[in-house]
Amino acid sequence: MKQFGPIPPGFAARDGELVIGGRTASDLAHEAGDTPLFVYDFALVKARIAALRAALPAEVALHYAVKANPFPPLVAAMVGEVDGLDVASGGELARALQAGKAAHAISFAGPGKRDAELAAALEAGVIINLESEGEAHRALSIAKEMHVKPHLAVRVNPDFDLRGSGMKMGGGAKPFGVDAARVPDLVRSLFQAGADWRGFHIFAGSQALDAAAVAEALAASVSLTAKLATEIGEAPPHVNLGGGFGIPYFAGDAPLDVREVGAQLSAVLAPRPEALAATTFSLELGRYLVGEAGVYLTRILDKKVSHGETFLITDGGLHHQLAASGNFGTVVRRNYPVAIASRFGAPPEDVVTITGCLCTPLDRLADSVHLPEAEVGDLVALFMAGAYGASASPQAFLAHPPAREILINHD
Amino acid sequence: MKQFGPIPPGFAARDGELVIGGRTASDLAHEAGDTPLFVYDFALVKARIAALRAALPAEVALHYAVKANPFPPLVAAMVGEVDGLDVASGGELARALQAGKAAHAISFAGPGKRDAELAAALEAGVIINLESEGEAHRALSIAKEMHVKPHLAVRVNPDFDLRGSGMKMGGGAKPFGVDAARVPDLVRSLFQAGADWRGFHIFAGSQALDAAAVAEALAASVSLTAKLATEIGEAPPHVNLGGGFGIPYFAGDAPLDVREVGAQLSAVLAPRPEALAATTFSLELGRYLVGEAGVYLTRILDKKVSHGETFLITDGGLHHQLAASGNFGTVVRRNYPVAIASRFGAPPEDVVTITGCLCTPLDRLADSVHLPEAEVGDLVALFMAGAYGASASPQAFLAHPPAREILINHD
Repeated sequence: MKQFGPIPPGFAARDGELVIGGRTASDLAHEAGDTPLFVYDFALVKARIAALRAALPAEVALHYAVKANPFPPLVAAMVGEVDGLDVASGGELARALQAGKAAHAISFAGPGKRDAELAAALEAGVIINLESEGEAHRALSIAKEMHVKPHLAVRVNPDFDLRGSGMKMGGGAKPFGVDAARVPDLVRSLFQAGADWRGFHIFAGSQALDAAAVAEALAASVSLTAKLATEIGEAPPHVNLGGGFGIPYFAGDAPLDVREVGAQLSAVLAPRPEALAATTFSLELGRYLVGEAGVYLTRILDKKVSHGETFLITDGGLHHQLAASGNFGTVVRRNYPVAIASRFGAPPEDVVTITGCLCTPLDRLADSVHLPEAEVGDLVALFMAGAYGASASPQAFLAHPPAREILINHD
Repeated sequence: MKQFGPIPPGFAARDGELVIGGRTASDLAHEAGDTPLFVYDFALVKARIAALRAALPAEVALHYAVKANPFPPLVAAMVGEVDGLDVASGGELARALQAGKAAHAISFAGPGKRDAELAAALEAGVIINLESEGEAHRALSIAKEMHVKPHLAVRVNPDFDLRGSGMKMGGGAKPFGVDAARVPDLVRSLFQAGADWRGFHIFAGSQALDAAAVAEALAASVSLTAKLATEIGEAPPHVNLGGGFGIPYFAGDAPLDVREVGAQLSAVLAPRPEALAATTFSLELGRYLVGEAGVYLTRILDKKVSHGETFLITDGGLHHQLAASGNFGTVVRRNYPVAIASRFGAPPEDVVTITGCLCTPLDRLADSVHLPEAEVGDLVALFMAGAYGASASPQAFLAHPPAREILINHD
C-alpha cells in the first residue's frame, strides 16, 4: 500500500458523492456528455486570491500565469480577479487579449519568441520580457519597422535559485533571461533605442512549499533589482518578482504558509530600498492560483485481478493528466490525491491500482492506494488537476478523444 | 560535455546539409511552410521491413502497431507493406480502416475499451484482443445485441517479462491481459458463447536491444501458448507474439541483431510444438519499424551565453518531442542523436545546450553536446523521431502551434 497526497480543502460529500462547486460528480459527468472531464471550481480560485491578497503587502500586484491553465473561460474569469496576465507564447497572448485584459496589464516572457510573436506583442502594446540581447535587438528592429514604441522589460537570470523548488529557473547557466552582470548594459541600450523600459522580470523557481525559501528568493530578487537600479541610475517602473509558490501534491507535503511569505515580503519592502522608491511590484502565480481548484473525473471501465492485485481501469489516463502519472518533471512516481468520487468519504476497504485506458505501463494514475470498494461505472477523482493538466498532456496519444473541461463560476 | 546517441543509418549530407529521403532539410522546412516539422522517410521504413522479412521465419507475419505513429499518410503507406495493423483505440481503429486495411487483418488491444469502441470493432469485424473476463462479457453482450459473430482473441498476461526491456508488460500483476492460469476457462467460455476464437496475444515488453532476451521472450511465448492450447484442447488459429524490438536511442546502445532473433525464432518454430501445428504467428512492431525513419527539424531562434555556457534556443520543444526531453518513461535524461542539419557532417567545434521555446527548464532537447558551430536561423535535427513523437507529446502546451508532419514516399 502506498500513500497518496492530501485531498485539498473545499471538497465535500453529498449523499456519498463528491461535490465540486455545489454539483455532484455524476451530475457534472452527465452535463459534460461523457467522461473523462476536468472540472474547475472558480469559487476556490477566488478564495485563494482573496487569501493571498490578505496575506501579501497591498502594494504587490497579483498576476496570473496563463500557462498553468489556458482554458478560455477560466482566463476570462481571471481578468476581473487579478491585476495582470503573464503569457508565454503568441497563442497565450491571443487568449489574454481575447479575454479582455488591457494590453498594459499583459506581459510576455519565453526564451524562444518568434518574430511573428514579437510583432503581435508590439502591435498589441503588451510588455515584452526580453530574454537575451539577441531578442532585444530583434524586438527593437521589428518595433522600428512597425513604427511603434516598444514596452520592454528585461528578464534577469539571477545568481541565486529558489531553495527546495521543484524546478529551478535561476542560479548558474540558464536559458532564461540575461545574466545579471550584463543587464545594466542591456537596459542602457534600450534607453538609447528610445524604448519604454518597463523594468525587470525575475523567476527563481517554482513549486516550493517552504515559506522561508520563497521569502528568501523574493528578498534576494528585491535586493538584486535594487543593485541593478543603482548601477543603471534609474528605478525600474515595475518588477515582476516571479512566484514559485507550491501546492501540496504528495503525502507529507504541507501547504505553503503564505502569511509568513507575506510578512517577510512586507518587511523587505518597508522600508523600501531607496533605488526602488518609485517601483511597483507584482507576483506571477499560476499553479498556486488554480491547481487545487481542478478535479479530473474519469469512469471505471473494468475491474480486474492479476496475481492477487486489483486494478481499476478507467477511461482516462496520462493523455489527459500526464503529471499525475509521474511522467512529467518527476524522477520518482508518487500518488496525487485520489478518491472514488461516487463513494466520497466512505471508509477505505480495498488496496487498488488505478490505470488509464492506454496500452502502456506508464499509464498509472494511482499506485496501490487504499480506497472504498469501487465497481465498474464508478467515477474516480484525481485532485490537483487545475494546473498543468489538459494543456500539458499528450491529448492525441493513441488517438483517444480529448477530455472535456467545465468551469463552475457562480458569478 | 555529454554524449549523444548514434545517428541512425540512411542520412547523408549534400552541400553541407542533412538530406532526408533525397531532400535537403531546408527544402523540407520550406515545403512545410514553417518549422518545426517531423519528416518521415518511408524508404527507410520499407528497407527496415525488407531486412526484417529476410531475417524472420517466412511463416511469421509482420504487423504494424499504429500507436507508434498514427500519421494518416504513414498508416496508409503501411497497408501495402505489412500483413496486419494493430490498434489501441477506437480512433486508431478508424484510421486503420480508413487506410484500407481489411478488417480480418486488424486487431484491437487496450486495457480500457469503451462499449462504443467494442461496438465499432464488432461492426467492422476486426479481431478484439480481450484484456479481461469483464471485457469478454461486455464484448459478447454487445455482439449479441448487434447480431454479429465476434472475432475474439485473448491477451495473455505471461508469467515472464522481457529481460532488459524499457517497459515491462508481463511478469507478475499487470493491468494488461488475463493471467495465464485463468486463460483456458476464458477461452472455453468464448466457445460456449459461439464466438469465433482467434487465438492469443502476448506482449512481454518493449524497447529491448538484446537479441537473446527478445528471442527468449518469444520462445517463452510460444511455449506458453502451446501449454495453453494443450490445456484447452484446441490449437489457437493465430498467436500475436508481440514485439519489444528496441532501437538505439542513446550513446553506447547497439542495434538489435534481428538475424539472431530470427534464427532463434526459426529454431523454436521448426519443429513446431504439436499443439500449435495449425497456428499462424505474427510479430507486432511499432517503434522498430518507424522510429529511426523520422527526423524532427527545428530552427534556432536565439543563441545566448549564460555563465560561460552556450544555449541554442529553438522554435521546437517538448510539446512536440516529449520523449527527447527525457520526460516520458525515462528516469535519467540522456541525449537523443542530434545534429545541426544545416551544417551536417561539419566537424564539432562548440559545446552547446539546445532547448525548446517553452518557458520551463524541462524543455531541454540536447544537453551539453559537441556540435558544429551554429547560428540563429540554422536547423537542428533530432533523430529517432519517427515513433512516439508528435502524437505522444503535449502539442497544446503553452498554446504553441503543433508541428508539421511530412511523409516522403517515392512510390
